[in-house]
Amino acid sequence: MQLNWTAEQQQTRTAFAAIGKMADPDELHLGRRAFDQRTWDRLTAAGLWRMIVPRDFGGDGRDWWGFTAALEGLSATLRTPGMLLSVIAQAGMVRALDLYGSDSQKREYLGRILNGELSATAIADPDTGTDVRATSSLLTPGPNETFRLSGAKYNIAHAPVASFILVVCKLSDHGREGISLVLLDADSPGLTIGAQDRKLGNLDLPTGQMRFDDVPLHYGHLLGEPGAGLRNLVNIVSMGRLYYGLAAAWLIEPMLSEAFDFSKKRTTFDVPIIEHQYIQKKLTDIRIGTESAKWVSYGALHQLLSGAPEAAMTCSISKLVGAETIVEGAMELMKLYGSKGYHEGQITTFLRDALAFCSVGGTEEMHRRNIFGQMARLHAKSKKAANPATPKTLEPA
Amino acid sequence: MQLNWTAEQQQTRTAFAAIGKMADPDELHLGRRAFDQRTWDRLTAAGLWRMIVPRDFGGDGRDWWGFTAALEGLSATLRTPGMLLSVIAQAGMVRALDLYGSDSQKREYLGRILNGELSATAIADPDTGTDVRATSSLLTPGPNETFRLSGAKYNIAHAPVASFILVVCKLSDHGREGISLVLLDADSPGLTIGAQDRKLGNLDLPTGQMRFDDVPLHYGHLLGEPGAGLRNLVNIVSMGRLYYGLAAAWLIEPMLSEAFDFSKKRTTFDVPIIEHQYIQKKLTDIRIGTESAKWVSYGALHQLLSGAPEAAMTCSISKLVGAETIVEGAMELMKLYGSKGYHEGQITTFLRDALAFCSVGGTEEMHRRNIFGQMARLHAKSKKAANPATPKTLEPA
Amino acid sequence: MQLNWTAEQQQTRTAFAAIGKMADPDELHLGRRAFDQRTWDRLTAAGLWRMIVPRDFGGDGRDWWGFTAALEGLSATLRTPGMLLSVIAQAGMVRALDLYGSDSQKREYLGRILNGELSATAIADPDTGTDVRATSSLLTPGPNETFRLSGAKYNIAHAPVASFILVVCKLSDHGREGISLVLLDADSPGLTIGAQDRKLGNLDLPTGQMRFDDVPLHYGHLLGEPGAGLRNLVNIVSMGRLYYGLAAAWLIEPMLSEAFDFSKKRTTFDVPIIEHQYIQKKLTDIRIGTESAKWVSYGALHQLLSGAPEAAMTCSISKLVGAETIVEGAMELMKLYGSKGYHEGQITTFLRDALAFCSVGGTEEMHRRNIFGQMARLHAKSKKAANPATPKTLEPA
Amino acid sequence: MQLNWTAEQQQTRTAFAAIGKMADPDELHLGRRAFDQRTWDRLTAAGLWRMIVPRDFGGDGRDWWGFTAALEGLSATLRTPGMLLSVIAQAGMVRALDLYGSDSQKREYLGRILNGELSATAIADPDTGTDVRATSSLLTPGPNETFRLSGAKYNIAHAPVASFILVVCKLSDHGREGISLVLLDADSPGLTIGAQDRKLGNLDLPTGQMRFDDVPLHYGHLLGEPGAGLRNLVNIVSMGRLYYGLAAAWLIEPMLSEAFDFSKKRTTFDVPIIEHQYIQKKLTDIRIGTESAKWVSYGALHQLLSGAPEAAMTCSISKLVGAETIVEGAMELMKLYGSKGYHEGQITTFLRDALAFCSVGGTEEMHRRNIFGQMARLHAKSKKAANPATPKTLEPA
Repeated sequence: MQLNWTAEQQQTRTAFAAIGKMADPDELHLGRRAFDQRTWDRLTAAGLWRMIVPRDFGGDGRDWWGFTAALEGLSATLRTPGMLLSVIAQAGMVRALDLYGSDSQKREYLGRILNGELSATAIADPDTGTDVRATSSLLTPGPNETFRLSGAKYNIAHAPVASFILVVCKLSDHGREGISLVLLDADSPGLTIGAQDRKLGNLDLPTGQMRFDDVPLHYGHLLGEPGAGLRNLVNIVSMGRLYYGLAAAWLIEPMLSEAFDFSKKRTTFDVPIIEHQYIQKKLTDIRIGTESAKWVSYGALHQLLSGAPEAAMTCSISKLVGAETIVEGAMELMKLYGSKGYHEGQITTFLRDALAFCSVGGTEEMHRRNIFGQMARLHAKSKKAANPATPKTLEPA
Repeated sequence: MQLNWTAEQQQTRTAFAAIGKMADPDELHLGRRAFDQRTWDRLTAAGLWRMIVPRDFGGDGRDWWGFTAALEGLSATLRTPGMLLSVIAQAGMVRALDLYGSDSQKREYLGRILNGELSATAIADPDTGTDVRATSSLLTPGPNETFRLSGAKYNIAHAPVASFILVVCKLSDHGREGISLVLLDADSPGLTIGAQDRKLGNLDLPTGQMRFDDVPLHYGHLLGEPGAGLRNLVNIVSMGRLYYGLAAAWLIEPMLSEAFDFSKKRTTFDVPIIEHQYIQKKLTDIRIGTESAKWVSYGALHQLLSGAPEAAMTCSISKLVGAETIVEGAMELMKLYGSKGYHEGQITTFLRDALAFCSVGGTEEMHRRNIFGQMARLHAKSKKAANPATPKTLEPA
Repeated sequence: MQLNWTAEQQQTRTAFAAIGKMADPDELHLGRRAFDQRTWDRLTAAGLWRMIVPRDFGGDGRDWWGFTAALEGLSATLRTPGMLLSVIAQAGMVRALDLYGSDSQKREYLGRILNGELSATAIADPDTGTDVRATSSLLTPGPNETFRLSGAKYNIAHAPVASFILVVCKLSDHGREGISLVLLDADSPGLTIGAQDRKLGNLDLPTGQMRFDDVPLHYGHLLGEPGAGLRNLVNIVSMGRLYYGLAAAWLIEPMLSEAFDFSKKRTTFDVPIIEHQYIQKKLTDIRIGTESAKWVSYGALHQLLSGAPEAAMTCSISKLVGAETIVEGAMELMKLYGSKGYHEGQITTFLRDALAFCSVGGTEEMHRRNIFGQMARLHAKSKKAANPATPKTLEPA
Repeated sequence: MQLNWTAEQQQTRTAFAAIGKMADPDELHLGRRAFDQRTWDRLTAAGLWRMIVPRDFGGDGRDWWGFTAALEGLSATLRTPGMLLSVIAQAGMVRALDLYGSDSQKREYLGRILNGELSATAIADPDTGTDVRATSSLLTPGPNETFRLSGAKYNIAHAPVASFILVVCKLSDHGREGISLVLLDADSPGLTIGAQDRKLGNLDLPTGQMRFDDVPLHYGHLLGEPGAGLRNLVNIVSMGRLYYGLAAAWLIEPMLSEAFDFSKKRTTFDVPIIEHQYIQKKLTDIRIGTESAKWVSYGALHQLLSGAPEAAMTCSISKLVGAETIVEGAMELMKLYGSKGYHEGQITTFLRDALAFCSVGGTEEMHRRNIFGQMARLHAKSKKAANPATPKTLEPA
C-alpha cells in the first residue's frame, strides 16, 4: 500500500490548483452563469487532455493517476462544480474512445479533444430517465451499412456547446438487448439542440435537450459493437462516478475552511459559536464525509484501473458518499450561517450548486440499485467459489 | 381528550382553505415574488383578526382554536409559506398587545390590525442574532419620561411594508437585564428602513433591515414593563413556534399528493417508481413527520392556552419537528423527481421556500438550547417536588 | 380540541402509576426474569379490565380513555416493558371479543379476563412471519359444523402462561382469502405448547411456540365470520399499535430523568458532561421523540374510537415513532454512560428490553408497508372525491 | 498510489485468516465466554509479533503493513471481536516500547511479547474516564529516583490476564501537566487486580479494575520522559484507532454474507425479502460503511507511518466510521431477522459484541472532540502558512 501522490503528481496537482484559482472571481457570490471558456482553454493548454490521450493519438500516455491529481487540485480551488463536471465528462469521452473507438475514431475525436473541443454524452430519454434499456432512441438499419437515428434525449451536459456527441440508443429490431452507442457531430443533419435548461444552480454547466429526426448514420458512427452498448456504457460511466465523489469531497474544503473562520468570529451568548458542539458536529460531519469519500475514491480508481471485480461497486459507493457529503454539508453550512445563510450569496450559491449532486451522475436510488446488484453478483461468485457445483449468478455485472 | 375540530371550526377551516385557493396561481411555478396584498385583504375581510381581538377592542373574542382552524385551512391550500408567516407574525402581535398592551395601545394598534395594517417585530441585531440579551439597540432615558432609541435590526419580516413595529431593545443603564419592548410607527423620525433582502426563496415575505438614529420615544411607547421584555418576548414568540410547526406540516401536503401522482405515472425499469420502496420510504417519511408535527402542535397550543409549565418546551418541539419535516421532505421530493427536480419550477421553488424554515422562527440549535433549558427547569422542579429541601433551579423559564 | 386528562382520568393514571411503583424492584438491575403475577393480580384487582369490559358482561363500560390513562400511569413507573405488553395484548383481546364475539363467547372469555386469566393471540407462522395470508395453519371443515386445526405458530406472547388463545388460521379450501380467527382453550387436545423462548431481553414477557395437531373445533370456536379474519385482525391489532407507541414513550421517561442526574454529576474535562451539547443532543432527541409519540398516540386513539379513515395509518405511525424513540434512546443512553453503559446493569437491561420494540407489534418495514398502503388508499379516495368519475382504488384498507 | 496487498502480504492475510477459522466454533452461537488462549498461542507461533518487533530485539523488523494484512485476515474470519481487540492492544504495546522504551525495557518486554505473554494498558480512572489529565493515579517521588504509585483504574482490557501493565499516571507535584507512563509487572506488590467485569458482550476480552496502593517503583519503570505521557499516549493509541475501524469493517463481512443468504430464502408476501428495497437498503448501508472504513483505515495507517500531520485526525475518523458501521449494521441485521433476530443466538451475540465498539477505543463524543481539535490545529496551521504573521494556534496536537 502506498497512498500518496508522487512528487510529480503533487506538482501536477499544484499546477492545476493554480488554474482553478485563476478562474474569474464572482464578486457578488451569485455563481458563474455560463460555461467558463477561458478556464477550459487554460486546462487544455496546460496539457490536461494530453495526460490521458494515448501516445499514438497525440497524447502523452494514459496517466490516469496524474490526471486525478490534476482534477483534485482543480476541485480544491474552483469553488463551483460546473467546470469539474465538464472535465469529468470529457475524461469519460477520452476513456470511451480509448477503450472502444476504432483507430479512425480515435484519430478524429481524440484530436478534437486535444484541441479543446467539447463533447457531450446523451444518455437519458425524457420518459425513461436512467433506465437506458427502455430508451426509445432508435437506430433503424438501412441499406449499405447505414442507419437512421430517431428519438430525444434530455438533461445532457454540454448539449448547447458540444462539438460532438455520444448517443445511447437501441437497434430498432433488438428489443431490450440492442443497446448501442453512436458518435456524431453536433451539426449533423436532423439533429436539433434544444434550449438551455433553467436550473436551480450549476449554471456554468450548460445542459439541454436534443432531438434526432432521422439522422443519417453509417456503420463507422458506431462506437464499439452494436448491442454491446450497455456493458460498455457501464464501464465508461464508472470512472465518472468515482471522480464525482472525489470532486465533491474537495469542492467543499474551502467552504469548510471559511465556515471555521466565520464560526470563530460569530459570537452568541458571549462565546464564539465554534465553541458550541452543535456547530462542531456540523464541521466534523463534513470532515468525516470528505475523508471517507476521498479514500474510497482512490480505492475505486485503483480497482478500476486494475480490473478488480469490485470496481463498479466501489465507484458507486464513491459517488454516493461524496454526493451525500456535499449535499448534507451544504445544508448544514447554510444552517450554520443562520439567516445570513438564507440570503442570496456565497452560501446559497454553493447550496444550489451542491444540490446538483443529488441527480448528476445518478440518483441515490440508482446507485443503491447498482451497489446491491454488484453485491449480489460478488456474493454469488464467492458462493460458487466455495461450492463450485452451484452454477447460479443472481445478476450480471 | 377530544382531538378534532368542532363543526364550527371545521367550517372556518374550509372557508379559509377556499381563500388560500384563490391566491394568484403562479403559472411558471417560480413562486410569488412579492407580498400578496390581495390575499391579505381577503383574510382581513373574512374576519381572521376579529377572531382573536378581544371584544372590548372591536373583535369577536379570543378564539385561538378557531384562528388555528383558519390557519390550518390556509396552510393546506396556499402553496407558499410567505403569507402564512405573515399571518403568524401578525397573530403574535395581537397576542403581544392583548397580554402586555395598555388600553390605549390596544385601542390604537388592535384597531389598525383589524383594518388590515401590517406590523413587524424587530428582534435580531446584525451582530448578535437571536441572543437578544446582547442587543446593542439601546433605549436611553431622557427628561420627562422620554427615551431615545438607537441601534440596528436585521432580517425583519415585513420591514419594507409594516405600518408599525415592535422593537426589542435594552435600557441603556441596565446591563443584560434591561430588555424592553417598544412599539412605534414606521414613519417615526430617525427610523430608516433598509432595502429589501435578496433571499433564496420565500420572496413573498418581504424582509429587511432597520436603523434607529435617536428615535424620540416616551413612556407610552413601552409595551409592558421596562426590563420585562425578555420574559414577555419568550411568551409572545412561543405561540408562533407551534404555528410554524403546524403550517409546515400542512404546506407540504399538496406537494406530497402530487408526488404520489407523479410516482404512479413515472416508470423506470418497467414499473411505476411508486412501487420502489426507496420511493415509498420518502413518502412515508413525510407522512410520519407531518402527523408528528400536527399532533404535537395541537398539544402545544393546548398547553400554551392552559398555562401548562411544559408549554414553552412543546412549542419548540413543534417548530423543530415541523421544520425538519418540510426541509427534509422538500429535499427528498427534489430527489424523487430526479433531474426534473433540479430544474427551475414548482419543485425547486418549494425547496427554496421550505429552506426558510431552517432559520425563520429560530434555528435548530436555538430550539435545542431552549428545549434543553426547559427540560432542565422541569427536571429540577420535579426533583424539588420529590425532595422539597433542594432549592436549586438550573435555569429560569 | 381538548388535550388533557379529566380529573377522574388523572386519578386513574395516578392510581395505576402507584401499582407500577409497587412492582418488585430488581436490586441487581438485571431485569425481571419471569411473568410478574403479583403485579398482574394487582391490576386486575384495581379494576383495569372492568374499565373496558361492557356492562352487560360484568364490566363498567367501554372507557378506553380511562384505560389509556391507567396504561400511561403504569408505563411511567414500571421500568420494564414486559407487563405493559401483557396488558396491551389483553386489552386487544377484550376489544376483539367486544367487536366480534358472540354473546356466549363474551360471557365466557370476558368473564375469565375479569378473573385475571391470561390470553394469547397466535398470529405468526414460523415460515411466513407476519404475512398472515400465507399462513399454513389450516382449518379443515368436518361434518356437523366441526373443524380440525393443524399448523404451528411461534413467537406468541403468553404462550407458556395463557389460559385461552386466539389463533389466526385459514380455511383449508379458500386460498389466500379464507383467513379466520378461532378461540380455544390452552388445554385443548392436540395443542402442544413449546418451550419458552430465550430472548435478548423482555424476559418477563414469556413467549413461545405452539403446535396444533388436528385440534377438534366446532363452529362456536370461530371469532367473527370465517373468511373475515384478516379485516378483523387489522382492526384488533391497530389499537395495540398506538399503545406500543404510548408505552414506549413513557417507559423511557425515568431513564431520561436518571441520565439527567448522572450527566450533572459525571465530570470530564472539568465540566459536568451535561454541559456538552453532544450530551444535550441525546437528551433532547429523546424528549422530541417522546412528545411526538405521545401526541400522535392520543390522535390515533381518537381516530380509532371515532372511526376516522386515517386511524389505521396513524396507529402505525404511533408504533413507529414510539419504537424508534425507545430503541434509539436506549442506544444513546448506553453511549452516554460510556463503558459503564456496556456493563451488565440497569442501562444494558433497559437496552435489551427496549430492542424488543424493533419486532414486537410489527417491524418497521411492516409498518411502513401499512402506512404506505393506507396513504395510497386515502390518496385514491381523495382523488375520487375530487373527480368522482375515477373508480380506481389502489389497495383495500 | 498503490492500494492493494503485495503477494507476500496477501499470503500473510490468508495464513491468519486460516487461524481465525480454526478458533473454536461456538455451537450455540452464544459467543465465546473467556479469553481464547489457544488462538492467541497460534497467533504467537505463527509469528504475528515477530513481524513488528525490531530485529535488534528478536523480531523480524517493523512490518506494519504485513501485520495489518494479518489483522485483516483474522478480522474476516474470527466472528467475535474479543481476540481482535486483544491483538490490537498488544500491537499498541509493541509500538509504545519501540517508540519510547529504553533498551532494557525493549529487551525485557518485547521478549515477553514474543513469548506470548499478555499486556494491559491502564488508562481510565473510575471517576474521570478518558480525561486522562484529570487522573488521580499519582506518582509520588521518593528518595533515590524512586516513586510510589497510588490510585485506581477501571475498564482495563486484559486486567485479569495480563503479565505486565502500562499505567497512565501523574507526577504528584506537577498539576495537569505531569502525565507520565509507567510499566510494571502484574505481580507488583501493592497492585490489586479486581474482579472481572460483567458486560453485555465481548466476553472473550476479559476486562477489570486495578488498585495501586503505594506500589514501589523506580526511574527505570518510567516509559518515556516523565511529563511527556500525554503526548506519547496520543501517539500510541492512534494506531489502535485505525485498527478498530479496520477490524470492525471486516468483522461484519461474514454476517453480511449470511444475511444475504437468509434474505434470499426468507419469503414474505410471496417474494424473498431480499427483493424488498427496505432490506436492500440495510445491506447496502453496511457495504457503504465497510468500504468507507477500510479505505480510510489504509489512509490513516499510511499517514501515521509517514508522519503526516493529519494522521491523528484520520485515525479517529477511521475508528468512528468503523464503529458506526458495525454498531448500526448489527442493529439493522437484528431488525432484518425479525423476531428471530431478538432470540438469543448468533444475531444477538453479534449485536452484544458489536455494541462494545460504542465505548471501546473511545466514545463517539471523544473522537469528535479529537477530530475537531485536530481540524482546528490544521486550520490554524494552514492560515499561518498563508499569513505567517499570525502566531496563534487553537489547540496543540
